[in-house]
Amino acid sequence: MDPLPLVDQHCHGVLRDGPHDRAGFEALLTESHAPPAPGTSFFDTQLGFAVRRWCAPVLGLEPHCAPEAYLDRRSALGTPEVTRRLLRAARVRTFLVDTGLPGDLLAPEELAAAGGGTAREIVRLEPLAERAAAGARGADAFLAALGAAIGTAAGTAAAFKSVAAYRYGLDLDPRPPAPAELWTAATRWLASGRTGRLTDPVLLRHLMWSAARTGLPLQVHTGFGDPDLRLHRADPLLLTDFLRAVEPTGCRVVLLHGYPFHRNAGYLAAVHPHVYADVGLTLGHTGARAEAVLSEMLELAPFGKLLFSTDAHGLPELYLTGAQLFRQAMARLSTRFTGDGSWSRADADRVAALLAAGNARRLYGLDD
Amino acid sequence: MDPLPLVDQHCHGVLRDGPHDRAGFEALLTESHAPPAPGTSFFDTQLGFAVRRWCAPVLGLEPHCAPEAYLDRRSALGTPEVTRRLLRAARVRTFLVDTGLPGDLLAPEELAAAGGGTAREIVRLEPLAERAAAGARGADAFLAALGAAIGTAAGTAAAFKSVAAYRYGLDLDPRPPAPAELWTAATRWLASGRTGRLTDPVLLRHLMWSAARTGLPLQVHTGFGDPDLRLHRADPLLLTDFLRAVEPTGCRVVLLHGYPFHRNAGYLAAVHPHVYADVGLTLGHTGARAEAVLSEMLELAPFGKLLFSTDAHGLPELYLTGAQLFRQAMARLSTRFTGDGSWSRADADRVAALLAAGNARRLYGLDD
Amino acid sequence: MDPLPLVDQHCHGVLRDGPHDRAGFEALLTESHAPPAPGTSFFDTQLGFAVRRWCAPVLGLEPHCAPEAYLDRRSALGTPEVTRRLLRAARVRTFLVDTGLPGDLLAPEELAAAGGGTAREIVRLEPLAERAAAGARGADAFLAALGAAIGTAAGTAAAFKSVAAYRYGLDLDPRPPAPAELWTAATRWLASGRTGRLTDPVLLRHLMWSAARTGLPLQVHTGFGDPDLRLHRADPLLLTDFLRAVEPTGCRVVLLHGYPFHRNAGYLAAVHPHVYADVGLTLGHTGARAEAVLSEMLELAPFGKLLFSTDAHGLPELYLTGAQLFRQAMARLSTRFTGDGSWSRADADRVAALLAAGNARRLYGLDD
Repeated sequence: MDPLPLVDQHCHGVLRDGPHDRAGFEALLTESHAPPAPGTSFFDTQLGFAVRRWCAPVLGLEPHCAPEAYLDRRSALGTPEVTRRLLRAARVRTFLVDTGLPGDLLAPEELAAAGGGTAREIVRLEPLAERAAAGARGADAFLAALGAAIGTAAGTAAAFKSVAAYRYGLDLDPRPPAPAELWTAATRWLASGRTGRLTDPVLLRHLMWSAARTGLPLQVHTGFGDPDLRLHRADPLLLTDFLRAVEPTGCRVVLLHGYPFHRNAGYLAAVHPHVYADVGLTLGHTGARAEAVLSEMLELAPFGKLLFSTDAHGLPELYLTGAQLFRQAMARLSTRFTGDGSWSRADADRVAALLAAGNARRLYGLDD
Repeated sequence: MDPLPLVDQHCHGVLRDGPHDRAGFEALLTESHAPPAPGTSFFDTQLGFAVRRWCAPVLGLEPHCAPEAYLDRRSALGTPEVTRRLLRAARVRTFLVDTGLPGDLLAPEELAAAGGGTAREIVRLEPLAERAAAGARGADAFLAALGAAIGTAAGTAAAFKSVAAYRYGLDLDPRPPAPAELWTAATRWLASGRTGRLTDPVLLRHLMWSAARTGLPLQVHTGFGDPDLRLHRADPLLLTDFLRAVEPTGCRVVLLHGYPFHRNAGYLAAVHPHVYADVGLTLGHTGARAEAVLSEMLELAPFGKLLFSTDAHGLPELYLTGAQLFRQAMARLSTRFTGDGSWSRADADRVAALLAAGNARRLYGLDD
Repeated sequence: MDPLPLVDQHCHGVLRDGPHDRAGFEALLTESHAPPAPGTSFFDTQLGFAVRRWCAPVLGLEPHCAPEAYLDRRSALGTPEVTRRLLRAARVRTFLVDTGLPGDLLAPEELAAAGGGTAREIVRLEPLAERAAAGARGADAFLAALGAAIGTAAGTAAAFKSVAAYRYGLDLDPRPPAPAELWTAATRWLASGRTGRLTDPVLLRHLMWSAARTGLPLQVHTGFGDPDLRLHRADPLLLTDFLRAVEPTGCRVVLLHGYPFHRNAGYLAAVHPHVYADVGLTLGHTGARAEAVLSEMLELAPFGKLLFSTDAHGLPELYLTGAQLFRQAMARLSTRFTGDGSWSRADADRVAALLAAGNARRLYGLDD
């Protein structure tokens, strides 16, 4: 049987070239910013084991071969061939690519070409603001340029994305900033030299509200990620009042990742018609536990509200592991739930297709 | 073997007539207040699948028949027959019914008659206060009327129930309000027109303390429910200081539902002799995952402290799914735990009987 | 095959004599300070069932024999024989013993002798401060004596331990106290009579920072424990800013127990090179669920960062149940993960050995 066709509703580019050594590869296997602790390796994680299990055969090696053998083979094949093989094996049909990360990464269309699919862009809000600020004279000009940039992006993007969880926390004031508050915050930020990353909570709220008003879906990072965030301030429940406030705009909000608060995200998707939840980073990083974690996501989240993604970044391995772990987890829980009579087989297949692609197609208005 | 006889220690009435269309039925399958998102259905949830699996055969249909076929059959049979069939199949022997919800619902004795069991009442505190306020002239009269109403209710009720989690959050000041603070709050509320729901935290605390002093068990809503609540403010751990403060009164507190904080509720039941935990809403809404979730509840909660309930409301389907999912989950985890030698079969049977009915009989002083 | 040799990286002494009755035994089966609720028993818990399953055969009884039979046999054998049998059966090779608990407990070397292993000491910080305060005249003398005591302890201890979670909560100011702030806090505490337990948050922070600067690992209680703590203030995520601040000292931090926040602890271990997570109290208390809970710990925690311990205290039964539940859980999840191809058998064995002993040997510099 054909593997489930996938829409990867949240992902990133992979390195055009590299990584060139084990340290560089390990750095992309983890959300940590630091080298592994002395005596340890990031290959010794669920994700590291999953890479050796799923990717080694695609490069012509035995599953679970030694990390050095894997990296040697990777070097011998070269980045473009490795990327092509792993992306093709992932069988992602549509890539929704957040282009807001730095580095020499494949652009969405290059990624799609390598993977044999199509791509649409997800526009990350904070870099839009950082770019608008770079050239602007004064708050009025900055805010006007930002508004124009959001409007332009809305014409082509599939969705917007906020990383307010990293920059401040989700315990933001839920309301749209009042004009004077916004103007003051913009002035303060510009006066500060605007060289750093945008972390002002008023401006972060303004970005979320501006995106919400475009009518495009708004993806919001929630749950785990790199150590820039304070995880307890990335619980999606902290968005409750924002979700209530934004509902009248018609904005649909997608709660990315969620782990270890994925049950909380499922609850929000269950009780708010405009809220969706995402698989994201979670299945790849939990590896052999993917079925268990996906099962938890499927407790309260309506089956029409949960979306597949890989959140892959840097390494094409993350596309293949994310895709295969999702397919395997979905197949296993379907077997489990149908085996005991809880679900019918027809329903299980329908739910799998919704999570894999159907929900994303409906939400983002993608052609089949 | 006879199915495990059950005491449903927290439930509500079902509709006397209806629902009359698919939208009405779906609205009672969810905790959401809104229609399903475009392109989705509340039948596509663990609860929706569980209804088709468990209830369809009782109405003479195949398990997992299409929702429309199910609803057509339901209409053809009529509400009284559907209610009778589903309630009888649930085999609940004793219903402890929270009568504080609006709507044309069967009264406890009608419910019991339809189900072939007996009923006792759980008195919800907030409506008692709202009714006492409606007729009172001034704070003193209101507080006196409220005290009298609580005293009267204590004469017949099996327990009291607080929905402070919905009305304010569980992060209440744990202490009983001082007389002046209470009088001021009462005056303020009466002056406000008292037409809305009681949300004043001082009065909510007063209700909880007043109930505690009657000697009856106090059920407290914790964890998920409808979107009136901010779920992060419904974590039972937020009650820690209240639980400590109330212990000297002799009050026993039952933490309802708990999910996704059910492990936290289990901890509180483990370390506080007067605290109990409840299965509640959780098993019905997590459906095929009921065994997994019940297993989590049974990690820290002493087996003499966890109680079965359905929290069924509106649809008799919720009685049958809640009861059957509990029985099945309990049977499966018993098989799992005895199969690997962790538990003896005799212990497993004893634990199942405690959760099903024994703990509730002891706590509420019910006759066998 | 030989059972996995273990380093118990966090444990306590057991009673030299006793307990002498059922109430005394039950009191050590629970984290509660109170007797069981009327009609219930602490034997009716996962831990109680695990004791009957694992310990009864070592005392020559059938698994799951009645509690009274177990206690009778225990009395007949006498404490030293029971201790010797249970500790030997646990096959712990190295005990890292927190000696900060009161009572007539076996000292580390006695424990090691009974168990056939070796011992090192973990020095609990708060009692060090309480002893330094008892003899000191004025804040300067107290702080000097405390500094000297920490320095002396660092010469022999394997690690320090903080119970700030019990004494205040983990939501402490993350910074080292400024000298004036520290002096004021010390003066205030001494003036208060210093008879109670140390609960001043400034002094608790000072202890953690003082220990961090010795270069020894710092164990921090997180997650559940006795009802002195407010569990929501024991979430390891609340340490995020402290972990960031302390990293430059080179201090390695071990997050003990963690449950029900063990996934949060795994995240911190994943993204901070100097942070480790612990199994602790959790597996013994969750009993038949130990595999499920250990699997959750192994979702994000790098396999080189998770450490076995029992947190046994008072009863030698807690050593045997903690050790056997860990071995069984590890064996089962290895079978599960290798059975479906997610892990290789060689990797599974390596991971088991790391958690059992290897990670602790590396972290604490123990000889093999």
